[in-house]
Amino acid sequence: MTISNLRIDPDRLMARLRALGQVGALAGGGVCRLALSDEDKAGRDVVTGWMRELGLDVAIDAIGNVVGTRAGEENLPAVMVGSHIDTVRTGGLFDGNLGVLAGLEIIAVLNDAGLSTRRPVAVGFFTNEEGARFAPDMMGSAVHQGFLGLEEAYQVRGIDGVTVRDELQRIGYLGPEPVGQHRAHCYFELHVEQGPVLEEKSVPVGVVEGVQGISWTQYRIIGVSNHAGTTPMRLRHDAGYVAAAIACEARRIANQMGGDQVATVGVNELTPNLINVIAAEALVTVDLRNTDEEKLKHAEALMADFIETAARNEGVSVSSQVLARFEPVVFDREKVDSVERLADQLGHKTMRLPSGAGHDAQMFAPNCPTAMIFVPSRDGISHNINEYTAPEEVAAGGDVLLQLVVENALK
Amino acid sequence: MTISNLRIDPDRLMARLRALGQVGALAGGGVCRLALSDEDKAGRDVVTGWMRELGLDVAIDAIGNVVGTRAGEENLPAVMVGSHIDTVRTGGLFDGNLGVLAGLEIIAVLNDAGLSTRRPVAVGFFTNEEGARFAPDMMGSAVHQGFLGLEEAYQVRGIDGVTVRDELQRIGYLGPEPVGQHRAHCYFELHVEQGPVLEEKSVPVGVVEGVQGISWTQYRIIGVSNHAGTTPMRLRHDAGYVAAAIACEARRIANQMGGDQVATVGVNELTPNLINVIAAEALVTVDLRNTDEEKLKHAEALMADFIETAARNEGVSVSSQVLARFEPVVFDREKVDSVERLADQLGHKTMRLPSGAGHDAQMFAPNCPTAMIFVPSRDGISHNINEYTAPEEVAAGGDVLLQLVVENALK
Repeated sequence: MTISNLRIDPDRLMARLRALGQVGALAGGGVCRLALSDEDKAGRDVVTGWMRELGLDVAIDAIGNVVGTRAGEENLPAVMVGSHIDTVRTGGLFDGNLGVLAGLEIIAVLNDAGLSTRRPVAVGFFTNEEGARFAPDMMGSAVHQGFLGLEEAYQVRGIDGVTVRDELQRIGYLGPEPVGQHRAHCYFELHVEQGPVLEEKSVPVGVVEGVQGISWTQYRIIGVSNHAGTTPMRLRHDAGYVAAAIACEARRIANQMGGDQVATVGVNELTPNLINVIAAEALVTVDLRNTDEEKLKHAEALMADFIETAARNEGVSVSSQVLARFEPVVFDREKVDSVERLADQLGHKTMRLPSGAGHDAQMFAPNCPTAMIFVPSRDGISHNINEYTAPEEVAAGGDVLLQLVVENALK
Repeated sequence: MTISNLRIDPDRLMARLRALGQVGALAGGGVCRLALSDEDKAGRDVVTGWMRELGLDVAIDAIGNVVGTRAGEENLPAVMVGSHIDTVRTGGLFDGNLGVLAGLEIIAVLNDAGLSTRRPVAVGFFTNEEGARFAPDMMGSAVHQGFLGLEEAYQVRGIDGVTVRDELQRIGYLGPEPVGQHRAHCYFELHVEQGPVLEEKSVPVGVVEGVQGISWTQYRIIGVSNHAGTTPMRLRHDAGYVAAAIACEARRIANQMGGDQVATVGVNELTPNLINVIAAEALVTVDLRNTDEEKLKHAEALMADFIETAARNEGVSVSSQVLARFEPVVFDREKVDSVERLADQLGHKTMRLPSGAGHDAQMFAPNCPTAMIFVPSRDGISHNINEYTAPEEVAAGGDVLLQLVVENALK
């Protein structure tokens, strides 16, 4: 057996993806397994069952993270593969699930090949990555890696008013294992891109360099409501105009900075929102992201300066509230290079790109060498029942993950 | 008696304004007399009663317009003073009512002075000027002056589903008089400015040169909803960005054109309106006004060109719907000059300005010499329970109207 000839079985992996997609399946396609719901419990039972069938030692920790471990020749920290199996309300079959089930596929390949590794290989799925029912998102991995306290997480109430702790208990996944028991030697995550870049470039394997830093700010602009006909332009204090100017400036900043910088104004609400009344009030949000913290700070500063000037010129007041702020995450340089090298060896075109969305991997990145592999999302669509990645793309990403795991588990 | 020494009695006029303000009074101040409601009927009864007390010959026409006439020495078309007494849902005491009750005050002055005039003097109030219950606004004067068919007006259904005809009948104001029977020799309307200009300039009497033309267009922009983090700027089709760009361009056009040009984007709605999702859809309205039809057309053309280019550049589709389009109205030059001259003679500062709002006077303007007099609105506020004009400003405007009526009725 030549190790570099090992390949995953894409049919077996796709079959598991489809089977898990039946749990909480929606009428029109797609799936709904909100974290710690009955459907999530059913999905957890299925995946945990597969772990046991594959001979893994399954541990469930106090925040409901499940880690199945294939023992190594030595009792060392494991090479860990992970992601999540909870979904948004109208989710697809790939987001999260792909990373977990590709991990199981790798275990199956190792088992079939009778290959023993120096280090253990572990496959984990982490509680409430999506944050669609409980905030914050990436909860399980955050607790696992020490960035969120267990008690704090327990007390979080979902959109339906119940606590994380009560729901963990109710579905039987408040496990006996202390959180963070399974320290990883390194952590790898295969995920769908959730964006259009790989498809646009016809590249099956994305080499993820890191996760963009995120800056979310909400601005409430207070102007003066007035008649659209009788109020001369120079006497206006138009909250709606300042809101629009902010959205235009966000675009200008992103275009001017270029590179990874993105800027989005997704919320814009006017009051009273009438055709012939100058808006008294406007609510807008600005979403800024960059892989470079200094650049992200620069974008924030440009935006803040602009808003201050625009508000003064228009004679409106603006109050702001930071809704989220995460620094960029940079993945391990050597592991990122490995992803690229292994994909090359496997004959797959690659490109480097940042992740625009958050992932469990970013919780591991500060504590152990971490890397992610992206595969294309058809039409860039995710969080949508039409989310799709072709079997050959799943196979390409899965094979890179397999080689990466084996390479790190053997040495 | 020197005619130029005639003055209105501001206390008597203010007392009538307050008394009419009690009909349909709101708890916190202000008034609600939606057209053809029970409150409107009660207000009509009060004003019609005053007309009869003043000896006017009261005629109610088939669309509910009420005209009270003081006979002249000759049976000629009357010098007509008019406005409306219906209000918006949270209206003030002055809008419309001032023009009607100032007309009654003039009748009282003429009666007290025992002054007979060559031409009759008529005071009218016209049905549903506000359009707050039935569309279109200025309905009664539009039917009166031949710009809207009686049957068409009858069939209009209000926001509560009932027809104009049924409500006219129900409140007893479907009158026997054929519409338009009372042709006016000339028409004058005293009104609150509903804007901040006179107050800002400390000018009590506004000489209204005309009514701005109005262009209302609604744009529906269809883009592509996508992830705010994973979608590079160059691959976006952001409906929200195009909406914001339209609002910024509207401001730019108004500033660049200057003069009377105003532009307002009062409605801006995004779908799905989420912080981290590029808007799939946006709805915006553009309100453009100018006193000059050619300039208004120019503003419309600039806006249309901009939107076409912006949509093409962003890869979104835009559909537009014209919600209203009225050409500017220019009041009679000689009567406008008269307003200015008479105010000068009375020692009141004046300034010329356009009306940014629609008024019954604009329906008369194409058919007979027409002029309007504005008095200041405190803080520019109207359509608001805090609408206010000081008694000395009411007196100034009322005296100009009195002199204007007498001058035209005598000759």
